[in-house]
Order: sequence, then structure tokens, then C-alpha cells
Amino acid sequence: MRELAVDLGERSYPIFIGSGVLTAHELLLPHLEQPRAVLVTNETVAPLYLERVTTMLERHAVRVDSVVLPDGEQYKNWQTLEKIYDTLVDTRAERTTPLIALGGGVIGDMTGFAAATWQRGAPFVQMPTTLLAQVDSSVGGKTAINHPRGKNMIGAFHQPRAVLIDTDTLATLPLRELRAGLAEVIKYGLIRDAAFFEWLEGHMEALLALEPGAVAFAIERSCRNKAEVVAADETERGERALLNLGHTFGHAIETGTGYVGWLHGEAVAVGMLMAAEVSLRLGWLDENELARIEGLLIRAGLPVQGPGLPVDEMLHWMAGDKKVSGGRLRLVLLQGIGRAVVTAEVPPSVLRAAIEARS
Amino acid sequence: MRELAVDLGERSYPIFIGSGVLTAHELLLPHLEQPRAVLVTNETVAPLYLERVTTMLERHAVRVDSVVLPDGEQYKNWQTLEKIYDTLVDTRAERTTPLIALGGGVIGDMTGFAAATWQRGAPFVQMPTTLLAQVDSSVGGKTAINHPRGKNMIGAFHQPRAVLIDTDTLATLPLRELRAGLAEVIKYGLIRDAAFFEWLEGHMEALLALEPGAVAFAIERSCRNKAEVVAADETERGERALLNLGHTFGHAIETGTGYVGWLHGEAVAVGMLMAAEVSLRLGWLDENELARIEGLLIRAGLPVQGPGLPVDEMLHWMAGDKKVSGGRLRLVLLQGIGRAVVTAEVPPSVLRAAIEARS
Repeated sequence: MRELAVDLGERSYPIFIGSGVLTAHELLLPHLEQPRAVLVTNETVAPLYLERVTTMLERHAVRVDSVVLPDGEQYKNWQTLEKIYDTLVDTRAERTTPLIALGGGVIGDMTGFAAATWQRGAPFVQMPTTLLAQVDSSVGGKTAINHPRGKNMIGAFHQPRAVLIDTDTLATLPLRELRAGLAEVIKYGLIRDAAFFEWLEGHMEALLALEPGAVAFAIERSCRNKAEVVAADETERGERALLNLGHTFGHAIETGTGYVGWLHGEAVAVGMLMAAEVSLRLGWLDENELARIEGLLIRAGLPVQGPGLPVDEMLHWMAGDKKVSGGRLRLVLLQGIGRAVVTAEVPPSVLRAAIEARS
Repeated sequence: MRELAVDLGERSYPIFIGSGVLTAHELLLPHLEQPRAVLVTNETVAPLYLERVTTMLERHAVRVDSVVLPDGEQYKNWQTLEKIYDTLVDTRAERTTPLIALGGGVIGDMTGFAAATWQRGAPFVQMPTTLLAQVDSSVGGKTAINHPRGKNMIGAFHQPRAVLIDTDTLATLPLRELRAGLAEVIKYGLIRDAAFFEWLEGHMEALLALEPGAVAFAIERSCRNKAEVVAADETERGERALLNLGHTFGHAIETGTGYVGWLHGEAVAVGMLMAAEVSLRLGWLDENELARIEGLLIRAGLPVQGPGLPVDEMLHWMAGDKKVSGGRLRLVLLQGIGRAVVTAEVPPSVLRAAIEARS
């Protein structure tokens, strides 16, 4: 079992990574303020893990109420969130009743937002069961739901009390979801950890084969990178924006396709290539680096071309991005592998050409 | 013009109180991060003040988009909130685009919650136009919407950048709403300011007649009391709970009547009397003090009996209160005029008798 900490003063919390973490009561119980919890999961994860976690908690005299939501990014909206609120009201949840998110990024984001807003702020714990949630969305306190016309437009910063990452859950994860999670893993190499990128070039097949040592290392290294960035800039006033490499493009693909058909990680993979294409055209990245990025994404089984949305539509959705400031779109670009920067200085023709190259 | 500050470190902000503050651009403009704003108001306030504020802003090159909501506590819900989000999306509001709440407590609470959750936190300014909002809800950063089965159950702490209180707006306020606001004014006297309570006993008719000096004094004194409590305990871990005197009872009345028929201040007036009845039965308050409280509420034109909800129903709604902890209801009670305390030690029979006396 590996343990990391996200260092945020009185809001600091641990990340536990390892086999069997999901039922390790000694890790979870110290982070529950009450001998009860409201467990939020979805229809896919519930048959796999809900009973196991519930039994563990009840054996330790923790009352468990649970709510099972439909599965999919298209349900990350107010109507689904209301089911969580209704359960909280029905079960008389209090301001200090902990919520537990058992599932992927959608479950984590929605449960976190419900906790952020329930009685103006309740505690919650993340139990991510997808690679994407384990390496990215469960850490750092970003919570949100989507607006029909903008991904993650409605949300809050609300840190969990603990993150419990059970690497065994990846055994039940569909391969496509595993690949999608690898996009965020590769992202850390690209934005700030060239050595990790090289390690990934040497271990992609081991990761896809779920070799335990490789998987645990990749998750820990990803979480460490994320924790360092979040500790330095909790509410994204500066450096944290670098974590959004590929996300402005990716969110446009997700919104433009109605949140169906494209997994978040798949959209981010194409988005990172669009960012790389911009960087190439600005002379910040060379052809060889672009080829290495594309090559690694292909080996991870990720798409390297978008769904064919018109450039004008991509630009329309991108103009609503949260990084737009004073009407100017700010983009995360690459000045080489392992070095991301934020800039608002991209000529429109360059941007269009880069999107077209991968649309 | 009077000026106070709410002292919360980097989240500190000023409260301006006076005649004509609504169009005092020199007070507002320094608190807008962008030369644009999204103004939120309702169908009652819009015909009175929207054009005036819009014109003032546009004259100073501030672009204004506005959204006009239906008026009433029964609209303080997600469906209405979505209209604000839709306007934010439609007008391409950014993370630093300021929202302005122009209206009473419902508008302030909803605009504040929209700001708290728009792109994980946008700035906002309070322009309260009812006495209740001016002396209470616009100050302190509590934002919320109602759940059908629980008032203010969904919300966030999110401080405004400034509070602009134009005392002239009280001239257009219906008398019933003025009276409702006086309930919260009287509350400050009861919980922590006996001298203010005495002053109110000497000036109730002046307040109802809107004598400018008396009104400005009462608003400033109320805001000063609130600002002190909020500065000491921003997120209600202790002392701030005292501000809820009468509110656990009052919220039960509001929820039990479906958020229609009873104004918040009216429900709080009866709720404060229920708290006083409990305190009397515990021997903490004497008959003379109870009579003084009732007498002042009557002179303010406030109800001193509830809508006749059965005691069991009152207790049902109260059991969902945000101050419930570990299944125990905590109540704010009085140990004399000017001295409120929180306790979880009320015998059920005493609680029932006190509610019955005023139900």
C-alpha cells in the first residue's frame, strides 16, 4: 500500500493506493465524522462493489444509505444530482454526515458537488474505480455538473477527506475505459514530468496488461504530480491551469457531441494532440516530439483524430471555456515534452489549422 | 453615507448604507473585476430599479446583461436558478464576470449561490432592496436554494465583494415586508445587544414611519452586529449559530406551508417567541421579558401565533434542520434579553408545550 498526501493546510488529506484498499476499514473509518455514510454509485459499479463496501462498513457499525445513479457523462446534470439531494433529505443526512463517491469521474464530480452544497458543505470521501478517476478527477477538489451548453460549468472547489484507490478495481474496468484513463496519465508526463513520459514509453504494454507494479507506479506518480500542482494552486489562479492540457479542445468535443459517444479521456487525447499541433506551428515543439506523443497515444489505444466537428463549432464551444478571460481564450500549450505553458497569444489562423489537422 | 467592513482577511468587504447608494457608481465600480456585469432581479423590483442601475453602469462603460426572475420564496429553487445559469451561458459570462443581486433575500441568496457555483466561483455584489435583506441576508455570505422538503438545504458559503444598501428603496417596500424585516432587526437585540433592544422599544414607530435617521441607525447597528459575528465565525462552527434564533421553528413554518403565505421574517417572529417560550419553561427567561419581546413584535406589526401546524409536523420539519448533529436537535434559546445560547438539552415535553403555546 502506498500513501501520499495532498498538502492544503487544514484541508490536507491522504491518498491511499493499493490492492484491497476498498475494504480496508482501518483506512476509511478515521475519515468518517459520523457512524453513518451516504454512498453514491452508479448502475455499473453497484453490482460489482456496492455490497462489498456496505458490508465492510456495517460490520464496523456504520449505517449505510446508498443511491444508485444511471451511468454516463450525459447524466452529469441537475436531474441526477437531485436524486442525491433527495436521498440526503429522505435519510435525514446532517451537515457532518459523510458522502462516499464509489465510481468513476462522473460519480466523483457529482458526489463532490452534492457534498459541497449540502447544508453549505458536508464531508466526503473519494473511492475511484476507474483509472481516470484514480489518477485525476478524485484528487484536487474540483467538483461539478455539466450545463447542456458547457462542460463542468456549474461546480465548486471542495476537497475530499481522503482518497482510497483500490487498484484491483481496474480488473473489472472495460478496456476502453482503461485506455481513456491513460490519456490523463500521459498528460502528466507531457506537462511537467519528462522522465515519467519516457517511463510510459517503456511500459505502455505493461500498463495495458495491468501488471500490478507498473499500474501502482503509474497511479502513484500521476497522483504525486497532481497533488504537487494542487498544493501550490488550489483554486487555479495560475499553475493549476496546466493540468487542463488538451481539455479546452476536449471539452468542446464532449459538449459538441452531446456528452455521448466520446469518453472524457478520449476527447482529452485528441485535445492534447490539437494543443501539440498548435505548439508545432508556433515552433515550440518539433516534428519528432509530436510523433512521440502521437505514437504513445496510439499505443495506449487512444484516438488521434476527433469526431469531425466543424472548426467553427469547435471554436464556438471553446469560447465558453472557463479559462476565457476578458474575452480572450487562453490555451495550455507545450514547449517540449514535459513543459507546458499557458498563453493567450495564438494567431487565429494557427488555431484553426491545428484543429483542422485533428478534427 | 455610513460605511462598515466585514473583516474576513482577504475576503473582507465593505457595506455602504445611505440614501442614493444604488446609483453611486463610485462605490460600485471599484468592486467590478470586469467592465461588464450580469444583473439578477425579480418582476417586482425590475420596474422600480433595474433601469436606474443599468443606466448608471452603462454610463460608465459597463456592459449590463440582466435576468428577471419571478418573485417569491416558492421560486427559490433549481428551476429558477437555471434561468441565471442560462443567462450566464448565453451571454458568455466568464469566471471573473461579476453578478449583481438587486432585490430581497431570495434574489440575494439565489444570485449568491449562482455566483458560488458558476465556473466554481464568480464574484458578486449585493444590492438589497428589502429591509430583511439589508439587515441580514445580504451580509455574511450564506447563499442557498430550498429543497421542497427543507429550506436552504442546498447552498454554499460565498462572500460578496461589496454590499450596497440604499435606504431609499424602503419607500417602495410594502409595509408587510418592512415589518418582516423588523423581525431580524429585533433579533440582534435579543441575541447580543440589549441596549439596541431598548432603543428599538423607544423607536419602533419612527422605524415604521421610515424616519431616515432611525432607519439608518437600525440598519447600521444590525449590520454591525452581524458583521462582528460573521468575522468571528464565518462558517458557523460556533457563535454564528446564534444568528439563527427563531429560525429552526421559522423554517419549519415556511417548509410546512410550502413556502407560500408566510414571509420569512413573519415565520422568524413566531419562531423567536417559540424559543422564548422554551426559555421561559426552562426558567431562563421571566414572564416580564417574554412580555417585552411579544410587545415589541406586536408593535412592529408581526404575528405572534403560527399558522396552526400540528406539533408533530413542526417537529418533523425541525428534525431536518441544519443544526441537527448526531440526531440531536440543537436550539438557540435566550438567557435573558440580549443573551442567546445554543443547547441540545431541551426536554421533549417542554419543546412540545412551547410550540403548542404559539402554533
